[in-house]
Amino acid sequence: MEQKRIYMDYSATTPVKKEVLDAMMPYLTDYFGNASSFHSFGREAKNALDKAREQVANLIGAKPNEIYFTSGGTESDNWAIKGVAFANKDKGNHIITSKIEHHAILHTCEYLEKHHGFEVTYLDVDSEGKIDLKQLEDAIKDTTILISIMFANNEIGTIQPIKEIGEIAKKHNIVFHTDAVQAAGNINIDVKELDVNLMSMSSHKIYGPKGIGALYVKNGTKLHAHSHGGAQERKRRGGTENLPSIVGYGKAAEIAKSHMSEHIERLTRLRDELINGILDKVPYTKVNGSLEDRLPGNANLRFEFIEGESIILMLDMLGIAVSTGSACASGSLDPSHVLMSIGLLHEEAHGSIRFSIGDFTTQEDIDYVIEKLPGVIERLRSMSPLYNNLVKGK
Amino acid sequence: MEQKRIYMDYSATTPVKKEVLDAMMPYLTDYFGNASSFHSFGREAKNALDKAREQVANLIGAKPNEIYFTSGGTESDNWAIKGVAFANKDKGNHIITSKIEHHAILHTCEYLEKHHGFEVTYLDVDSEGKIDLKQLEDAIKDTTILISIMFANNEIGTIQPIKEIGEIAKKHNIVFHTDAVQAAGNINIDVKELDVNLMSMSSHKIYGPKGIGALYVKNGTKLHAHSHGGAQERKRRGGTENLPSIVGYGKAAEIAKSHMSEHIERLTRLRDELINGILDKVPYTKVNGSLEDRLPGNANLRFEFIEGESIILMLDMLGIAVSTGSACASGSLDPSHVLMSIGLLHEEAHGSIRFSIGDFTTQEDIDYVIEKLPGVIERLRSMSPLYNNLVKGK
Repeated sequence: MEQKRIYMDYSATTPVKKEVLDAMMPYLTDYFGNASSFHSFGREAKNALDKAREQVANLIGAKPNEIYFTSGGTESDNWAIKGVAFANKDKGNHIITSKIEHHAILHTCEYLEKHHGFEVTYLDVDSEGKIDLKQLEDAIKDTTILISIMFANNEIGTIQPIKEIGEIAKKHNIVFHTDAVQAAGNINIDVKELDVNLMSMSSHKIYGPKGIGALYVKNGTKLHAHSHGGAQERKRRGGTENLPSIVGYGKAAEIAKSHMSEHIERLTRLRDELINGILDKVPYTKVNGSLEDRLPGNANLRFEFIEGESIILMLDMLGIAVSTGSACASGSLDPSHVLMSIGLLHEEAHGSIRFSIGDFTTQEDIDYVIEKLPGVIERLRSMSPLYNNLVKGK
Repeated sequence: MEQKRIYMDYSATTPVKKEVLDAMMPYLTDYFGNASSFHSFGREAKNALDKAREQVANLIGAKPNEIYFTSGGTESDNWAIKGVAFANKDKGNHIITSKIEHHAILHTCEYLEKHHGFEVTYLDVDSEGKIDLKQLEDAIKDTTILISIMFANNEIGTIQPIKEIGEIAKKHNIVFHTDAVQAAGNINIDVKELDVNLMSMSSHKIYGPKGIGALYVKNGTKLHAHSHGGAQERKRRGGTENLPSIVGYGKAAEIAKSHMSEHIERLTRLRDELINGILDKVPYTKVNGSLEDRLPGNANLRFEFIEGESIILMLDMLGIAVSTGSACASGSLDPSHVLMSIGLLHEEAHGSIRFSIGDFTTQEDIDYVIEKLPGVIERLRSMSPLYNNLVKGK
């Protein structure tokens, strides 16, 4: 019998949709020209570049000339943070962000503090992972030049009050950046309704290829380049355009936009079934993050008395791929900074698992996980002295 | 009759070889996992990542742990220059480079001068495009922290005396970076024989996909990260690994390495035929750059009395794709900084064309260009008052 393979790690990366790959293929073969070349090979490439820029702009209600292609979410985050910081050095050196940002934000901020004389305030979050708007406003100083708060968290899926944060930033005339790598393409976003100056996005979280992303830069935003070089991307981001991937990202954005309501409705239903099914069958289990303001595909659960790593390994043997949280932080033995920031104990953080589902997740997948998981948890707990003393010993 | 299409702009970008695309496809479809994930999808990706790193390392005689994947040559150049500059600020603020570097180097250096307190010396080059080793050594100060000289020029193909430059850098204990975007994979390079600390490389110049490149970082080189974030690339370059492209780059590097002698021999022969054929048939034409130390696929010629742009347009109508120089600088009306630096007059620079050939260039392509070009030049010159006065009027 063939081994079942169920992928529930869509927040780490998604498969490329067939229509996306089909759109890319001509640019990986016949239409290989450099989009900056004058000859016919170049013009074919240029036309495709323009179209993809429109598709990505359309996903978030932006103008095409506000979309800059990058190599992905991490580059977009680095560009936004360093680009604003260095461009506004004369105005101030203070940045406000939160404790649960992606490492692309946190490590960039720490770098600016350590090596470039910037000062960073890391806002707390509540037990659901939301920042406090009053605390944000209190943190603003005369020297504050940038607020960076993520749209939706990659580990627990919590969606921040982006509209309200933007209003505060605007009132104080401070540039506002949001890391929307998990959000853009998975939930409705219209920058025209938000006071956002900069927004990081990624392709491989929405069924596009890896190695490509974008930074939305509202017209008029003061920003240094991150990668200096050729005249590409209106002289703001050098490097030969990665056209096959840009075309793929454009197609993925177009599909995401056109299927948005259905995508949200379907994933929310499957996710809630998964969460409720697990909570019903597995005692001493809780949900991490908000139940209301949450990414449709994210279920993050903590299983008391056991280690997340062991759960992953046992599920992997059953063909089920899940994660403890960020793939980007893998290799580290530290508990998740996100889970610690929402107030979990070390052992609770270590016992947490992220199930992230997506467009190829089926009802059968959900049922299979609900069927198999209780036995896995039971077996691991039976080996846990803590569980045996505290629970079984009762 | 179908229009002939002859591509002679390989220095701008190359088509992806079939074997490269075949190697990439599984990672664009079934094996889509995040290389940093623990589960089986992640492990498949991780193994492919390790193999590609070995293939790229092997191309230049490096150790696999000295290869860091980036989004391309421009990112590698930015990382090398800023990474060394910021990491050595306490030691000094002086950088030495040359006037004919790619804009990814020049614009990065200018940025560091303008905004971060660095001082940059731009070395002259001779009429062939080579720097003077004496001038280099004379430019070194107590505060010099970095020398960056390109391996081979992207416009005129001139290969610099990298071994000698490295020896000078080493003697003075200065970090040496070389932009080998055009060189690595097109000529023999062995870092074990060169005192090079950092080397930028690109995939799409050697029949691999766009949007992927590498920075060689010799073990022990002090370097700040350019893109902070996740733990990828041994914590030195964050971002989900662009695995399909990395695998493609690995395959392209492997092919380049195994076919190197044949590649060099064949292209050199075709290039020389092209150059000699044109020189024979078209009067008032000269070669830009060195005839000895030159990239195998590069022919850069200047046609007196006419504009390069017009030549490109007319050749394009005949199905022949060539360029005036760097695709990255397109959109600018300024003459090439490279051609001006080797001492050409404005009008000579404007009348120059780069023919860059590659592995899919055939003998028929060469013959066709030699057949068609003289008529194009003749026709354009017949419309040139300058030509009619100076030459025909004789």
